Formats: sequence, C-alpha cells, structure tokens
Amino acid sequence: MSTVDAETDAMRSAWRLVWESLAPIGRDPSSGGYLRLSWSPADLAAREWFVTQARSRGLDVETDRNGNLWAWWGDPSAGDAVVTGSHLDSVPHGGAFDGALGVAAALLAVDTLRARGFAPRRPIGIVVFTEEEGSRFGVACLGSRLLTGVVDPARARDLTDANGTTLTQALAEAGLDPTAIGPEPERLARIRSFVELHIEQGRGLARPVGVASGIWPHGRWRLDVAGEGNHAGTTLMADRRDPMLTAAFAVLAVNKEARLLGAHATVGRLSVHPNATNAVPEQVTVWIDARAAQQSTLDLFVANVRRRVAERAERDGTAVTLAAESVSCAVAFDAALRDRLVATLGPDTPVLGTAAGHDAGVLATAGVPTAMLFVRNPTGVSHSPAEHATDDDCVAGIAALARVLEDLAC
Amino acid sequence: MSTVDAETDAMRSAWRLVWESLAPIGRDPSSGGYLRLSWSPADLAAREWFVTQARSRGLDVETDRNGNLWAWWGDPSAGDAVVTGSHLDSVPHGGAFDGALGVAAALLAVDTLRARGFAPRRPIGIVVFTEEEGSRFGVACLGSRLLTGVVDPARARDLTDANGTTLTQALAEAGLDPTAIGPEPERLARIRSFVELHIEQGRGLARPVGVASGIWPHGRWRLDVAGEGNHAGTTLMADRRDPMLTAAFAVLAVNKEARLLGAHATVGRLSVHPNATNAVPEQVTVWIDARAAQQSTLDLFVANVRRRVAERAERDGTAVTLAAESVSCAVAFDAALRDRLVATLGPDTPVLGTAAGHDAGVLATAGVPTAMLFVRNPTGVSHSPAEHATDDDCVAGIAALARVLEDLAC
Repeated sequence: MSTVDAETDAMRSAWRLVWESLAPIGRDPSSGGYLRLSWSPADLAAREWFVTQARSRGLDVETDRNGNLWAWWGDPSAGDAVVTGSHLDSVPHGGAFDGALGVAAALLAVDTLRARGFAPRRPIGIVVFTEEEGSRFGVACLGSRLLTGVVDPARARDLTDANGTTLTQALAEAGLDPTAIGPEPERLARIRSFVELHIEQGRGLARPVGVASGIWPHGRWRLDVAGEGNHAGTTLMADRRDPMLTAAFAVLAVNKEARLLGAHATVGRLSVHPNATNAVPEQVTVWIDARAAQQSTLDLFVANVRRRVAERAERDGTAVTLAAESVSCAVAFDAALRDRLVATLGPDTPVLGTAAGHDAGVLATAGVPTAMLFVRNPTGVSHSPAEHATDDDCVAGIAALARVLEDLAC
Repeated sequence: MSTVDAETDAMRSAWRLVWESLAPIGRDPSSGGYLRLSWSPADLAAREWFVTQARSRGLDVETDRNGNLWAWWGDPSAGDAVVTGSHLDSVPHGGAFDGALGVAAALLAVDTLRARGFAPRRPIGIVVFTEEEGSRFGVACLGSRLLTGVVDPARARDLTDANGTTLTQALAEAGLDPTAIGPEPERLARIRSFVELHIEQGRGLARPVGVASGIWPHGRWRLDVAGEGNHAGTTLMADRRDPMLTAAFAVLAVNKEARLLGAHATVGRLSVHPNATNAVPEQVTVWIDARAAQQSTLDLFVANVRRRVAERAERDGTAVTLAAESVSCAVAFDAALRDRLVATLGPDTPVLGTAAGHDAGVLATAGVPTAMLFVRNPTGVSHSPAEHATDDDCVAGIAALARVLEDLAC
C-alpha cells in the first residue's frame, strides 16, 4: 500500500468515527432529518460535541460575543490566521451535510496535517457560526453578519422565533450576554484568509471537489396578507375578503416570474391565522426566497411579484405588504485566493458559482479574503433528509482542505 | 312599567351577569377571540362554569359517556324530555357567541320560566356538546356524532390533534374513560324534542329571532400533496417537485369552482412541512370546507376540484390524495316542530336555512325531532373575534327560547 493510499484509508476510518459521533445529535427519528435550530437543546449538544472534539485535539476553544465558536491551533493573537469552518445549525428536517460537513472536515484536516508532522507558521482556526440557516430567527448567517457588523445588534436582539422567544432570551438562556453582541473588527482583522468547505447544493460538480467562484445575489421577503376572518360556511363568496386567495396567487406568481426571468424563487414557508378548517382566515403570511445570477434580475423579479400581488389583492379585497427580511448582494470570492486553491488542487479543479448563501459570502463582503471548497452532491438534493455525499467524496474534500490549509499556513 | 317590560329589564340584567361570567374563559387578550379547543384547560374551565351555573339553579348535572354535559330540571328517566343547549368549544380565535350563546340562553330561559312559576310536565334538559367545531380533532360535532353512533368509536379514539395527542389521551386526562365512548340510543330515545338556539352566521335575519328550516349538505376534505424537499436556492426550477405550487393551485381552484357552482368553499387551514423559508417543501396539506344547497352540487364541486388538482399535480410532479374527513348530508328540520315554533313565536317569524353545521343537524339526522332558533347577527361575521349580537337581540332570543320550552314542556 502506498503512503497516499494508507493516508486515505486512515482518513476514511477517522471520517466515519467523527461523522458517526455527530450524526445522532438533533436527528428526528421519523423524518431522518435534522432539527438543529440555533440555541435549541440539539444545537447546544452539537456545539458541545464540537468543543469536545476540538479540546481532544488540544485546540483552544473560545466563544465570541455573538456566540460563534472558534478553535485554535496556534495563537490567534499573532494575527495572519488561516481560518476554516462552517455551521452546525440546520433547516427544520434538513440534511446531515449542510454546514456540519465543513466543521467535521476542518477537524479532520487538522488531524491530517498533524499526522504528516506539519508545523503551521500561521495560526489555524476552525469556526462554527451560529444561525447560518436563519431557521429560528429568520435572518440567515446571523452569527457572521453580527460579527461583521452588517446586522444591527439592537434589531437582532428583538428578532423572535415561531414561539415568540426573542434572540435576547435565547442567548441569555444559553449563558451569553445579549447586550454584548455586535461587530468584532479586531477579530476579523486577524484573519488572513477564510476557506469554508461545504456540500454542493445543486448538481454542479462532476468531480468530488470544486472551488467556488461566487454567490448569486439573494434574499428573503415577507408578504403579509390581511383579510377578514369569517365563517367558512355561511359567508357568501362575494362577501369574502379571503387572504388565502391572495397568498395562493402569490405562490404561483413567485414561481412563474422566477421561471420567466431565469431566477430561482420559492415559497417554502407559510403561516395562516387562525388556521381553522371552518374559518375564512384573517391573515396569511408568505415568505419568499429568491436568487438570481444578476442583481438587476432579482430586482425585476421582486418588482414584478409586488405588482402582480397588489393587483390580485385589489380583487380579493385584502391588504398586502411586501418587505425584505434579509438581502445579500452578489459575492465574488477573492480571485487570487481562488486561483491559489486551484493551483494547489490541480488545474482540472472545477470552479463554479452557487445560488446558496454562506457565511463565507458574508466574510467576503466584509473584506476578508475568502474562498470555498465544494464537495460533490450526486443528486443535488439539499435542505432535505435525502441530502447526501459519498464517503469517498467527503474524504477527498478533507484531503483537499488539508492541502489548502497546508499551503496557506506554511 | 308593564309586566313584559319588567321581565325584559330583569332578563337584560341577568343576561349581562351570566354572559360576563363566561366571557373571560379562554379569551385571548391579543386577538380578543376565543381559544376554547375541546378538553383544553380553557374548555375545562368553561365546562366547570356550566356545571356551577346549572347546580346553582338546582339542576342535576351528568356527563355522558362521550363527555357531553347534561343538566336536568325534572327527572330525565321519565322520558319525553324537552332538551335545549349547544356547545362551548370554539374555533381558534373564534367569536364569543357561536355555541356559548345557546348554552347561556338555555340557563336564562330556565330562569325565565321559573320566575313565571312555570312547572314543566316534562323534564327539561340543557346539553353542552363537546368538540362541535372539530377544531382540535378534525371531526365537527364529534360529541353528538358519537352519541348518535354516526362516528365509529375506535376511529374517534385514534383521532389526533396538531400536537399528536389522541382523543384517547385527551379524554383520559380529563378523567373520562376513552373505552366507553360510543352511541347511547337509550339516552336519545328519552328526548321528545331538541331545540338549539344559535347565533345566525350570515346576514339572513332582518328580525331579532328566526327559525331554521334546514342545513345545507356540507363536509371537510383533506388534500395531501407530496413533493420532494430540496434547497430553495440551488435547485433548478425545472428540477423541482414543489407541493406548494399544487396546494396554491388547489386553493384557487376551490374558490373558483365554488363560485361557478353557487357553493360555499374555503381553504382556511394549511400545513407545510418542513415550513422553512429556504427549503422547497416536502409535503403540504390543505383542508377544504365546502357546502351547497344541494347534495348534487356538492358532489360535482368535489369531483371538479379533484380533477383539476390531479391535472396540476401531474404538471408539478407531485402526488395528491383527496379524502373526506367528515361529510354531512342535507338536514331538513322536523316540519311539525318548525311550524309549532313559528306558531308560538308569531306568524312573522322568519324561517331560514343555513350553511353552518350544528349538533342539531346531527340529532335531526338521527331521528330526534329537532328545531333551531337563530339570533340575528348584524354583520354576518362569525368564527372571528368580530362576531357579535346585540344585548337586545340576545334577550329576545332568550325570551323566544323560554316560550318555546314552555310550549313544548307543558
């Protein structure tokens, strides 16, 4: 067996061990998907798993003011750090790989470098960002946005989850100081480069590992439709002001406008009040996720949906408001860093864009030289229990990340 | 002041006292509507309120095997009983009057008759049926349907609420024996006539009080749409199997087909899984409430919706199932009893049909001579916090009920 084969074999065993130790945390036995909403018991258990894994490797672990976890090989105060990592929170009933693969790969890449006897000249950090999915408090990449100062801490403190719990309450319950959240420019300034490894979320990779070029502009909009609650049986059809009709029209309009413009748009979340079979609803809220290769396309999409929904609301006698909840501009990752990754991994390494938002995009926008590695997703399914990557591809991703960190930190 | 005026005056004061003692129970301070789902703490408090009110009048209170409450003036074992009453459960954030008015009016009609020194020859009963709205376990008029044997007790025991609690568990927690639920023909046989007073739920009454002719055939159907959960950003529009699209189309098709056929149909309840902004849903369920003057119209409505939704599902790549959850045939109330009520209340008393289901309809279908009194609803709004009847109309309803009971029980 060659040295490379032996290293790969050892890495496959190590990968299975680490991955299986994380797998049960927050997994819903009925759906097979994950319920790791940020600061939930499952999320806290996943964070504890990370702390244990990092400490067992002799890494120094700290929690920043926004609840993001950092594990260090070397002294971060020296600056010029090479950081990798991702997130551990999930969408409701999401897949195992989204986020978690990047964290597990980071730990295993450190193992690989140590097994090779590599001594980094620069500190290597592993970060676990909180609330990347925005599934609990509605703002995606909340941890990295707070860190980089693009979300107002006062606004963030008042964000509420579906049960009315505020971020302030959730942080306080987890033992953090909610008044301390906000930008940490000195922490960012210490980062020489950030490389996030992530499962690819389309079917864009024919090879096990690729490098990201950039992220489509994207955002979330909230459409509130107010009507008049009434009896489902006795109210004449002509007398109704039914917000469900406007909401249903909006769902179809979002899909049609996205197709016409070559954008991606989705209504994956909807809330009905009072949500009773025998009552015309009083209020329906629809959340719109939309992304496009160009900002101008995305702007046109939102304008078209706004106009068409307003027309329909007029007919339905309902009142609508459409407001952005979070909007991310296009991200072009650092060109020099991207080219360096391709040079390290080989000239055949695919370079591809993505429509998915990532903490890497937030850091890139904040001026941190940032890159991403993608691991192949054979079906393209993501945000679903069916999300999958093969062991071989995950090990290839870890090996690629190790080579990149070795190159950047030496 | 005339005797009639003095009685009306006393009744208005008594009405306000009784009504205000019930009003706070289960009222949501933010919406002003009621959250009296059956067997919830609020519903148990409302039941306790009824027991206290009945006992303070010297009535004998019993709970039947299905959890319905009965209060008796006179000995029910004598048979030939005249029964009135309604229900205390509500739709989520429903109005104060739907159901509760009929229970309060029954208590106050007994007071009226006693104040006049009336001695009934026949026992007078007041019944409070459970789960009339079907808001918790999905089957409307569950208490009266179990009593009359039109719902299978084994099926009922397995009904689950939104939290996965079964009726078996809810009944056991309330101290009832879930194995004992089912038909009580001997109890029904003792009822000579049943008269339910209820707030009218359209705008069908120009006078304070009317008499019901019948109930439209109506039912609830559940449409399950299964698709493929996926990432909202990265999944190509052409690759999606998005159940939200089929569900939105169904909402609009339900409305359009109802308008075309002169039926009433509503989607007031919708459930999305996993209900995440950045995930194409895996599953969407839509509940359809539909009613029509003729059974043939209702059948055609369901067939049309079924066909159109199946066509759309084909386009969306989703799988749909449409199943009836509860269906009620047309009810024509007992003609002789209806005429007797009109004769008692005066020839100008309006007689009107309704599209709303009631326990009275279930009893009528089971062969109990049944009638209904309606109290005017000035706006027609129902199943909403805005549901309202004036004090004067409520007092007129109580007086009418007292006269009817006096006539039937003497």
